[in-house]
Amino acid sequence: LRTKPEDHTLTETQAVPLFSRAAIGSFFQEQPVLRNPFTQDALLRAYLRRHLALQVESDLRTFGERIVSEIDALGRQCEQNPPRLQQYEAWGRRADRVITCPAWTRMKHIAAQEGLVAAGYERRFGEWSRVYQMCKLYLYAPSAGLFSCPLAMTDGAAKVIQSLGMPVKEAFARLTTRDEKRFWTSGQWMTERMGGSDVANGTETVAWRQEDGSFRLHGFKWFTSATDADFTLTLARIADEDGNTTPGTRGVSLFCAEVWGSDGFTNGIEIQRLKDKLGTRQMPTAELLLDGTRAQLLSEEGRGVASIANMLTLTRIHNTVSAAAAMRRITQLGREYSTKRSVFGKLLKDHPLHVQTLSRMEVETRAAFLLMMEVCRLLGREETGAATEREAHLLRLLTPVAKLYSGKQAVAVVSEGLECFGGQGYIEDTGLPAMLRDAQVLSIWEGTTNVLSLDVLRSISKSSGLVLQAFFSDVEQHHNELHRGKPHQSGAARINMLID
Amino acid sequence: LRTKPEDHTLTETQAVPLFSRAAIGSFFQEQPVLRNPFTQDALLRAYLRRHLALQVESDLRTFGERIVSEIDALGRQCEQNPPRLQQYEAWGRRADRVITCPAWTRMKHIAAQEGLVAAGYERRFGEWSRVYQMCKLYLYAPSAGLFSCPLAMTDGAAKVIQSLGMPVKEAFARLTTRDEKRFWTSGQWMTERMGGSDVANGTETVAWRQEDGSFRLHGFKWFTSATDADFTLTLARIADEDGNTTPGTRGVSLFCAEVWGSDGFTNGIEIQRLKDKLGTRQMPTAELLLDGTRAQLLSEEGRGVASIANMLTLTRIHNTVSAAAAMRRITQLGREYSTKRSVFGKLLKDHPLHVQTLSRMEVETRAAFLLMMEVCRLLGREETGAATEREAHLLRLLTPVAKLYSGKQAVAVVSEGLECFGGQGYIEDTGLPAMLRDAQVLSIWEGTTNVLSLDVLRSISKSSGLVLQAFFSDVEQHHNELHRGKPHQSGAARINMLID
Amino acid sequence: LRTKPEDHTLTETQAVPLFSRAAIGSFFQEQPVLRNPFTQDALLRAYLRRHLALQVESDLRTFGERIVSEIDALGRQCEQNPPRLQQYEAWGRRADRVITCPAWTRMKHIAAQEGLVAAGYERRFGEWSRVYQMCKLYLYAPSAGLFSCPLAMTDGAAKVIQSLGMPVKEAFARLTTRDEKRFWTSGQWMTERMGGSDVANGTETVAWRQEDGSFRLHGFKWFTSATDADFTLTLARIADEDGNTTPGTRGVSLFCAEVWGSDGFTNGIEIQRLKDKLGTRQMPTAELLLDGTRAQLLSEEGRGVASIANMLTLTRIHNTVSAAAAMRRITQLGREYSTKRSVFGKLLKDHPLHVQTLSRMEVETRAAFLLMMEVCRLLGREETGAATEREAHLLRLLTPVAKLYSGKQAVAVVSEGLECFGGQGYIEDTGLPAMLRDAQVLSIWEGTTNVLSLDVLRSISKSSGLVLQAFFSDVEQHHNELHRGKPHQSGAARINMLID
Amino acid sequence: LRTKPEDHTLTETQAVPLFSRAAIGSFFQEQPVLRNPFTQDALLRAYLRRHLALQVESDLRTFGERIVSEIDALGRQCEQNPPRLQQYEAWGRRADRVITCPAWTRMKHIAAQEGLVAAGYERRFGEWSRVYQMCKLYLYAPSAGLFSCPLAMTDGAAKVIQSLGMPVKEAFARLTTRDEKRFWTSGQWMTERMGGSDVANGTETVAWRQEDGSFRLHGFKWFTSATDADFTLTLARIADEDGNTTPGTRGVSLFCAEVWGSDGFTNGIEIQRLKDKLGTRQMPTAELLLDGTRAQLLSEEGRGVASIANMLTLTRIHNTVSAAAAMRRITQLGREYSTKRSVFGKLLKDHPLHVQTLSRMEVETRAAFLLMMEVCRLLGREETGAATEREAHLLRLLTPVAKLYSGKQAVAVVSEGLECFGGQGYIEDTGLPAMLRDAQVLSIWEGTTNVLSLDVLRSISKSSGLVLQAFFSDVEQHHNELHRGKPHQSGAARINMLID
Repeated sequence: LRTKPEDHTLTETQAVPLFSRAAIGSFFQEQPVLRNPFTQDALLRAYLRRHLALQVESDLRTFGERIVSEIDALGRQCEQNPPRLQQYEAWGRRADRVITCPAWTRMKHIAAQEGLVAAGYERRFGEWSRVYQMCKLYLYAPSAGLFSCPLAMTDGAAKVIQSLGMPVKEAFARLTTRDEKRFWTSGQWMTERMGGSDVANGTETVAWRQEDGSFRLHGFKWFTSATDADFTLTLARIADEDGNTTPGTRGVSLFCAEVWGSDGFTNGIEIQRLKDKLGTRQMPTAELLLDGTRAQLLSEEGRGVASIANMLTLTRIHNTVSAAAAMRRITQLGREYSTKRSVFGKLLKDHPLHVQTLSRMEVETRAAFLLMMEVCRLLGREETGAATEREAHLLRLLTPVAKLYSGKQAVAVVSEGLECFGGQGYIEDTGLPAMLRDAQVLSIWEGTTNVLSLDVLRSISKSSGLVLQAFFSDVEQHHNELHRGKPHQSGAARINMLID
Repeated sequence: LRTKPEDHTLTETQAVPLFSRAAIGSFFQEQPVLRNPFTQDALLRAYLRRHLALQVESDLRTFGERIVSEIDALGRQCEQNPPRLQQYEAWGRRADRVITCPAWTRMKHIAAQEGLVAAGYERRFGEWSRVYQMCKLYLYAPSAGLFSCPLAMTDGAAKVIQSLGMPVKEAFARLTTRDEKRFWTSGQWMTERMGGSDVANGTETVAWRQEDGSFRLHGFKWFTSATDADFTLTLARIADEDGNTTPGTRGVSLFCAEVWGSDGFTNGIEIQRLKDKLGTRQMPTAELLLDGTRAQLLSEEGRGVASIANMLTLTRIHNTVSAAAAMRRITQLGREYSTKRSVFGKLLKDHPLHVQTLSRMEVETRAAFLLMMEVCRLLGREETGAATEREAHLLRLLTPVAKLYSGKQAVAVVSEGLECFGGQGYIEDTGLPAMLRDAQVLSIWEGTTNVLSLDVLRSISKSSGLVLQAFFSDVEQHHNELHRGKPHQSGAARINMLID
Repeated sequence: LRTKPEDHTLTETQAVPLFSRAAIGSFFQEQPVLRNPFTQDALLRAYLRRHLALQVESDLRTFGERIVSEIDALGRQCEQNPPRLQQYEAWGRRADRVITCPAWTRMKHIAAQEGLVAAGYERRFGEWSRVYQMCKLYLYAPSAGLFSCPLAMTDGAAKVIQSLGMPVKEAFARLTTRDEKRFWTSGQWMTERMGGSDVANGTETVAWRQEDGSFRLHGFKWFTSATDADFTLTLARIADEDGNTTPGTRGVSLFCAEVWGSDGFTNGIEIQRLKDKLGTRQMPTAELLLDGTRAQLLSEEGRGVASIANMLTLTRIHNTVSAAAAMRRITQLGREYSTKRSVFGKLLKDHPLHVQTLSRMEVETRAAFLLMMEVCRLLGREETGAATEREAHLLRLLTPVAKLYSGKQAVAVVSEGLECFGGQGYIEDTGLPAMLRDAQVLSIWEGTTNVLSLDVLRSISKSSGLVLQAFFSDVEQHHNELHRGKPHQSGAARINMLID
Repeated sequence: LRTKPEDHTLTETQAVPLFSRAAIGSFFQEQPVLRNPFTQDALLRAYLRRHLALQVESDLRTFGERIVSEIDALGRQCEQNPPRLQQYEAWGRRADRVITCPAWTRMKHIAAQEGLVAAGYERRFGEWSRVYQMCKLYLYAPSAGLFSCPLAMTDGAAKVIQSLGMPVKEAFARLTTRDEKRFWTSGQWMTERMGGSDVANGTETVAWRQEDGSFRLHGFKWFTSATDADFTLTLARIADEDGNTTPGTRGVSLFCAEVWGSDGFTNGIEIQRLKDKLGTRQMPTAELLLDGTRAQLLSEEGRGVASIANMLTLTRIHNTVSAAAAMRRITQLGREYSTKRSVFGKLLKDHPLHVQTLSRMEVETRAAFLLMMEVCRLLGREETGAATEREAHLLRLLTPVAKLYSGKQAVAVVSEGLECFGGQGYIEDTGLPAMLRDAQVLSIWEGTTNVLSLDVLRSISKSSGLVLQAFFSDVEQHHNELHRGKPHQSGAARINMLID
């Protein structure tokens, strides 16, 4: 009933039970642990304490706790159970269903409850409402399993509808509700095969006017994120009676449509395939054939491109938030791990070179955070009519700048962060590599770095240089305040003092 | 903006919108639809009306409705999201976790709520309690996504504990509760690589006595169904002080153990792999290394084999229920489909040959149902002390007979049933092929046909032929009753009258 | 550097190396081993020795060896790497490619080299050529990873082309070559959503006549096996100048088409999805949209249904061969295993009940084999002009009879066979369950049991009963020969003598 | 037989065939095409022309052609069919097999044929042999489906064996052969859970001396790349008679072992799991339990860490080659694409900002290439005894410098490169994202950036600053040569002139 280990091992008598322990050894690496991202974030708390005082601290602390105890695990479940496409039913009919996991549905409910879109429209905190909303998203994004993306699109859609004078009240109400049963997410189906950022030339989709004033859309949308949305915005060219359309920007109009018909089938939408993406795999991105999709005209005819400018402002800010949040998360995890992992005889945190690496990541992260917050602050002021002309110029300038810088930064900082974990940073089930895969999208979607650089040029040119003038006078003001030791009331530079 | 179809198609002028409909045609086959399996089952209702009158009809109707509206979809979700094994954690520790889908967890809750095990122990309907319980399982099984299997094992485990005088009260309470939070399922880890039905010779696992009276088990279990259970029964040989054990039946004792320790790790259990099975894929079956599993002795020493006889009675009856239920389900679906699908100019139901096929399936199904009910009736009477000696003999004889016949029947009837759907019967997303894959296990587990045939022989031999005598006198009595037109109080044959 | 096992195990001093062996135990079940299926098959060899003497024995022995050493492993690779569909290319174009594994390609080359289709057309063995060909396929099928299916279709297609006077010589040459580089397989795309066996009413596909005499097909084919074929036969209704077609049988014509155009794209074929089948998973079965497929008319107009009768004779015989072969394989494996596996203290082969089970499987298998061989013999005689009128009637009658019986038998025998391996018979990586999954198709495709039963009736009715008369006089003759001890020259019954 | 499109589209009469074309539109993006990477690479050709003249040009051109016509497709197949682990056989025995696809095997054969390791040892080109070998690898790596990794390890292993005086001649011969049948790859199993770069403290594996002078190893290797190798190097601590080992660097010795025993089972190796990595997914990386692995001592006892220094030099140079090659590939593809893709009304290559982006990528790539070539040149000179003392110092200094810089550069340049393709750069089936996933490993394995930075410091400290002195005098010399317009005979800076 006993066995001797094979004689190659030891010469002395030995006895171990049959089926004895598979000795994989007893040393295991410590792993980084997620802690309440709000309480861990001294800079965020200092910023808020100064501007919003205790108004939101309790909500954010509770939300941070929920992220640790509930949301982060849901996000991982979304990662492990990515959406899949059911193109046909068993008995032959088209299904065109994106099957998502229960955790993804739960994410939607939580997003509603927490007001992650609603907070921007309720304006409980006046001009600081956007700051408050974006702080929540900043805490939320790295644990959200990419549900932050449909929220960005939903926010952008709500903003456009609002800016167009609420042509679809019910949809707006659903996009901005806290009621999880009524809450809708919105897609933005802009990119066609020809296009991308160049929607003016890229839009081939044709809208055929129906007798009841609605339209039927026919076209092929090449990238449509959050394809499981309830509602969507999209661009098309209206055909005249002869079926002709106007080329270029002036031919493009903005439409909205519900994704599902009351008959349980899609609203004339065929999902051709789900994109197999580098990252953001939790979120379905698809190629869609619009084949008679019933839609409602949202913008004035031919004003489609102009009407989505507001949407782009919003989604670019969301992109900036996600970038800053990713940097913050990897920096937190890296710092946490450095207090546990020992190599060459001491903890990582006691290796000067490693501390330098973490410090550089921290500085990048802080800069991204402060830039992001300044843009959010300006947005909030503009939306509530509190913005000065200079601030309006600054918002116009800084929105693309913040997006393009933070997108690039995020890849570099996250890549550096993975290295802080050695080989483990390259292993998917730690959850770390997904951060790099997800970060890479931040410099691509909502306009690549070069597209946004051109947008910055356009803002300078259109304002005859006023946006730059606003920027320099802002910088100068802060510089003077710093040197005079005076209290400071606005701008990014002031905030730098907080972080020392 | 318009395009002409390519010139090979029609000569006349044509115009269709760009991106026009991908015409996959407009004819689609009708598909069979699941209806309330209780209200659809005239034989079941007639049987119950005679014996239990209205007491359970309302509960079963409601349960049938729940099957249609909730349980069947959960079962499909379990099929589509089979369990997977996480052997290691990201940072190196063993995890040994079977990851099941949320629908599987929901199934467990529903099973508790509906009392699918509890009903057999609450005995609300006296000697008819087992009939009532098994009727629920009979309705439930084909929609259960194989959750019927852990329930069978749980029922068997509860039965053994009860029959051994409740050595583990808390465990028994959890196995038989309706409280979904407290409810435990039990595994039965009997089969080792040497063994199978031959547990007497097949058990290599050794139990080492600990100072506190508990044991540590070391061994390898080759087939362990429902590996995600909370609790388990298992067999092992107790080592004496010198580490020696007794060979053969007399060396085998029955143990129970909890699967998870309070430290969040398994109780000395390593999952070596999940079995890749023909069917029952929703339910995890695994190979386990017991490596110091802390366990409690349940039977007397050396009485392990004898003590699981009660368990086998229960699980074989459950097996019979699943077999009859599978036949009923495929027959129902086939009949339903025959009223919709038209070939050679008329509905399937109007083709005489097809009707003959369905009729033969129906007859097989009725026979299996009635045999199953008779065994359940006898079990209920025995458990409540109401059984006569003849009935006890009958139960002993009919339990293996019903299992072995119904297992074989189920494969044949389900295979025939798939053919009723033509090519669609071979396509997995109809859900039909899974019925064949699942049916094949019914003649294998809990004893193959030959093993059970030998068990029948053993029952004859051990009773010196009394079990056969009981059978023949039972048959004779029913024959006489039928001919005299007298009321009948027991036995299978009487019931045949009901079905005309 | 050493560790003591935890103190719960043994009291004496122990020492084992760190990371010592994960003791999963030392007993492992013996597994059945495939041996040369030709040398193992006494009945086949006896049959051939009598009729074809040594002419083919050497070829079949060598082929049997190749099956063991090469083909069986390729078949398993095909099972493990099932075909997948690439619907689109990365940059947006439709691809409509079925990606198969290298082993599948290798199977095609071997099939050509071994003349698995060619042998039926080369007629090296005169009227015994079909017997020879089908013997090879009978040895080959259970190891073929379902490549037997494209070969059946290819054989059927060649037969039709031959019987229609060789309208497409080049295609015929490719279908029947032994040159692996030129060898083509053919699909048979008959089933549409309406149809199945009822092609007369089920065919919706329309053929539009082109100026060059070819046609363009538009339609939806619902089941198309071996979708990766090079060539295909299919049915369609020819449209007149107004686009109208003739309903019913008289409107259906037979066409052939190449699957790939010279431009690297499909010939107007879109693959909508691969079928997710119970078995035969190595072989792609798909739903196809024919969207302007250029095709050539093969039959006379309106003679499509009649012209595929020859094809059906061939594919039904192939089906019978696969059924007999599956029974033979499982019986061989079961017998082999019974000499190795020990339970209840002795080998399975020493348990009388198990021997009885194996014997019944053997008898079923022999019967199926002999029936199959008789049909093949009759086919060979008919094709070479050697058949008497009685033999022609017998071929007509026995083809559907053999198919329908053997299909049902195969499921029953294979299901019984799985049981012979206990739980292992239910585990996919033994390769055993695939045999049941694959067997189930045999009673469905090429006509279900009921469809074939009606075909038998039709043969009786059309021949005014002569087919039955042929059958009875054949049986009577054999009966007389047996009783007179005379030498026997034809028929199934004689062969029974061989097997004693 | 015809159908009108639904009336919502157009009012005029229309007719299209049933099942007409699924119009997904007619515009498709151009895609980048791989061309002969040798002929496309002006810098490489210029460098070689100057130093090796025509000796290797023909071989590299032919090899470049083979990359385009054969290797690149094999690499994609490896990506699509990643290795999988078979831990157990069907009947219970451990298998511990990594199943790789046929394309991976083919890669191994090609690597032998092309002498991708052998070229470094044959020394056909004297001191330029390493330059020649690494140029081939530089062309090869981006198409190699990561087979470059096993080659790096094999090269490193051969180097160590050579430097230790050929203790295992047969193994060395196999590692450096061009005969594809004899060719072996080697793993390097260094990293344990404690360790990583810190092998001195991280090695727990114990070696038990056997009577025949060989050893048995017991331990757990946490990262083992190219686990499917034939042969491996690994570190362990030799136990004395009492089972004690020496801690720290001095306890560690270098061993080699064959992976497979002659019995068809592994040499005491259990594969615990394959790592689920961000990239390099074609190549199996595993956690291994060494459980009595028979091994041969390769270094002197206690000289294990020192003896692998040569190996690290080689693998770090390979890493640098892969980094430069990745940059070159993405830059080539990006440039190619810019000549095809049109946005905002003109080709990408006509947008100044895009040209600037490509130019910056090009500059980074050139710098990396030249640094890599200089290190290879120095290596070749050192190996052939041609190196001056200054060159030896330079090699020591530049090896870690080149690895650490190029690893970081590769991530940045590839990330920028993906952006050049817009959204398509984020879609896996273009093959582009894999380049980023694979690049991220380059800064992690063979020493992270910080580990290598410390190694640079160590080289300065150990040489009492001579390595830095060598560097500065080298720079100075080139500076002078450039200014004097003199011919230059060595060093990186000279080469810069070539690229104008």
